[in-house]
Amino acid sequence: MKVYLDNSATTRCSRRAVDQMVRLLEEDYGNPSSLHRMGEQAEIYIKEARQTIAKTLKAEEKEIVFTSGGTESNNLAILGAAEANKRAGNHVITTAIEHPSVWQTVKYLEESGYRITALPVDAKGVISLDALEEALDEETILVSMMQVNNEIGTIEPIEQAAKRIRKKAPQALIHTDAIQSYGKLAVCPKKTDVDLVSVSGHKIHGPKGSGFLYIREKTKIRPIVFGGGQQKGMRSGTENVPAIAGLSVAAAECYEQLEENADRMYRLRDYFIQEVTGISGVSVNGALGRAAAPHIVSVSVEDVKSEVLLHSLEEKGIYISAGSACSSHKRSVSRTLQAIGLNRSQADTTVRFSFCEATTKEEIDYTLECLNETIPFRRKFTRR
Amino acid sequence: MKVYLDNSATTRCSRRAVDQMVRLLEEDYGNPSSLHRMGEQAEIYIKEARQTIAKTLKAEEKEIVFTSGGTESNNLAILGAAEANKRAGNHVITTAIEHPSVWQTVKYLEESGYRITALPVDAKGVISLDALEEALDEETILVSMMQVNNEIGTIEPIEQAAKRIRKKAPQALIHTDAIQSYGKLAVCPKKTDVDLVSVSGHKIHGPKGSGFLYIREKTKIRPIVFGGGQQKGMRSGTENVPAIAGLSVAAAECYEQLEENADRMYRLRDYFIQEVTGISGVSVNGALGRAAAPHIVSVSVEDVKSEVLLHSLEEKGIYISAGSACSSHKRSVSRTLQAIGLNRSQADTTVRFSFCEATTKEEIDYTLECLNETIPFRRKFTRR
Repeated sequence: MKVYLDNSATTRCSRRAVDQMVRLLEEDYGNPSSLHRMGEQAEIYIKEARQTIAKTLKAEEKEIVFTSGGTESNNLAILGAAEANKRAGNHVITTAIEHPSVWQTVKYLEESGYRITALPVDAKGVISLDALEEALDEETILVSMMQVNNEIGTIEPIEQAAKRIRKKAPQALIHTDAIQSYGKLAVCPKKTDVDLVSVSGHKIHGPKGSGFLYIREKTKIRPIVFGGGQQKGMRSGTENVPAIAGLSVAAAECYEQLEENADRMYRLRDYFIQEVTGISGVSVNGALGRAAAPHIVSVSVEDVKSEVLLHSLEEKGIYISAGSACSSHKRSVSRTLQAIGLNRSQADTTVRFSFCEATTKEEIDYTLECLNETIPFRRKFTRR
Repeated sequence: MKVYLDNSATTRCSRRAVDQMVRLLEEDYGNPSSLHRMGEQAEIYIKEARQTIAKTLKAEEKEIVFTSGGTESNNLAILGAAEANKRAGNHVITTAIEHPSVWQTVKYLEESGYRITALPVDAKGVISLDALEEALDEETILVSMMQVNNEIGTIEPIEQAAKRIRKKAPQALIHTDAIQSYGKLAVCPKKTDVDLVSVSGHKIHGPKGSGFLYIREKTKIRPIVFGGGQQKGMRSGTENVPAIAGLSVAAAECYEQLEENADRMYRLRDYFIQEVTGISGVSVNGALGRAAAPHIVSVSVEDVKSEVLLHSLEEKGIYISAGSACSSHKRSVSRTLQAIGLNRSQADTTVRFSFCEATTKEEIDYTLECLNETIPFRRKFTRR
């Protein structure tokens, strides 16, 4: 049995998305900047993709800028907002549990002379709204907070945070990294009242190398890549038409049955958490129930190193992650796990299971069976 | 008959490249940063792609950084080199005929306080080596020159330029935009003695959204995108494995039969130029014979606006470009055509034909036939 439970690292691309991509790679392969009808046709594909995606966000077509993925979206949001608003202030707020593509970008701003505040989180990984309120001042130009944490699945109170930001620092832009929430939960920038939202394609069964940044109308932001002026100058470079179209197919598929899918994944998650915490010395990190995303479960297994468990499960055809797989093999302790109060040895024994819409109860049962078998076995070999 | 002669705008993706991409989108879809075998497998695909591409350049594997395309490669080369070497000087040299992804990036540096020199070219579009020599000084940190001009096909004397640069300004990095030469001509950074080489995938029958930057070992350059530290920190973001693999397949196909293909395209180009200039009031811009790339022909047609000719040919199934199609519908006069001395009305009547390896003599004959028919016909309607 092959059970892929590393969907927060990347997903299998949807069949319909692949079909669309193949068509655009081999047949309708025009450059959208070309003036002939193959170029026009390519432009239509982009326009349709933009409409489809705008609809999933209850946003406007013109508010979507396609990028090469989540990392570029986060970089464009943060560097672009900082650069465009540097005269208004030099203070940027983020959280202690952001993904490296936000965290390292903010660190780069710090090197460049910006003042940075990283908000703490509680034991479930929820950011402190009081700390946010305290940090906001007249110099704050940007607040960047993720909607769902990629390692533990906790949902952040972005809407309440936005209310406080608008009140105390109305000049600040609000960015949310929605890379782990888009496609799994409703993402409505206007309702939540955020200005910038980052999304990645390959986390939602779209192609790698695809993504977008929602930029609310009239938001002041500068491009970070320069060239032919595509996408109204916000992202130069020949549009990646096949990937854009593939992304829009995948996005539409996610949002067609969002609630049913989320309900099913929540039931699986609740069930998995209930059963896995029944194993001696096993605990789950982050929020429970609807306070977390439906697809991410962070599990600490006393006395079994995460890599050992990962490879044990791999032998049985189960693919999971040791912490977060987005950080290119880095062995440093996860900032998120530290921030929620895990000590080094707890962090070192933490793994992530991440589901997708197609994950089945049979797969979860098989995984639980393997865990029940392998955990006591591996512990025998652990030196205390 | 459908005749696609806009290959310098974009190309049809190779069948074998598409097959490989489909496999990596649907089957071997792991994230290279994942520690399990699906991640390892993805890493192997990247490693193999890097080896394949390094071989085409006679370079080392570790000197290749994958990007989202030519625009990003040029931005990374220029912004990355300027940022890393700003303490060494603030002078950047480029040419008057660069693609917007170089030109606009250099303009951004100018806004940020760098001193810029744009080298003039002669009537064939060849940059002035004397002007280069004169411009070089102890403040020069970067020289960026394209290898083949995208609008007229002229090949630039990069190797001789490099010799002068190493002699007079040994501290300067040398970047070449090889987007129109890679896959058509030999591109050997070590022989040419350049430090940075930009390539785009979709110009060589690879996928859109793919490309790479060759960075010579020990070259000081800073990343422009921050995050998970992939590709040794030089380009964060989950590697676009399907596109990288597709690009390497396309690159290998180009270099398998480079000389035969180039010879055949040169014969077609020479033939086309000979025949097309036989039409009254038609002239060809840029260099001839082996002084130009084999696939680009810039043609000015007295009294027939480029868009009129473009749409006339389109009606007959022939797809060409009005000037350069990389500039997203901009109607401004081409800097390249201005630089080689065309006046406004000459520039406004200039079109580009660009071939690929699969272009046939039949297609060229059909195109010539249509041109012979349509040019006199269109002129009748031109107000003098």
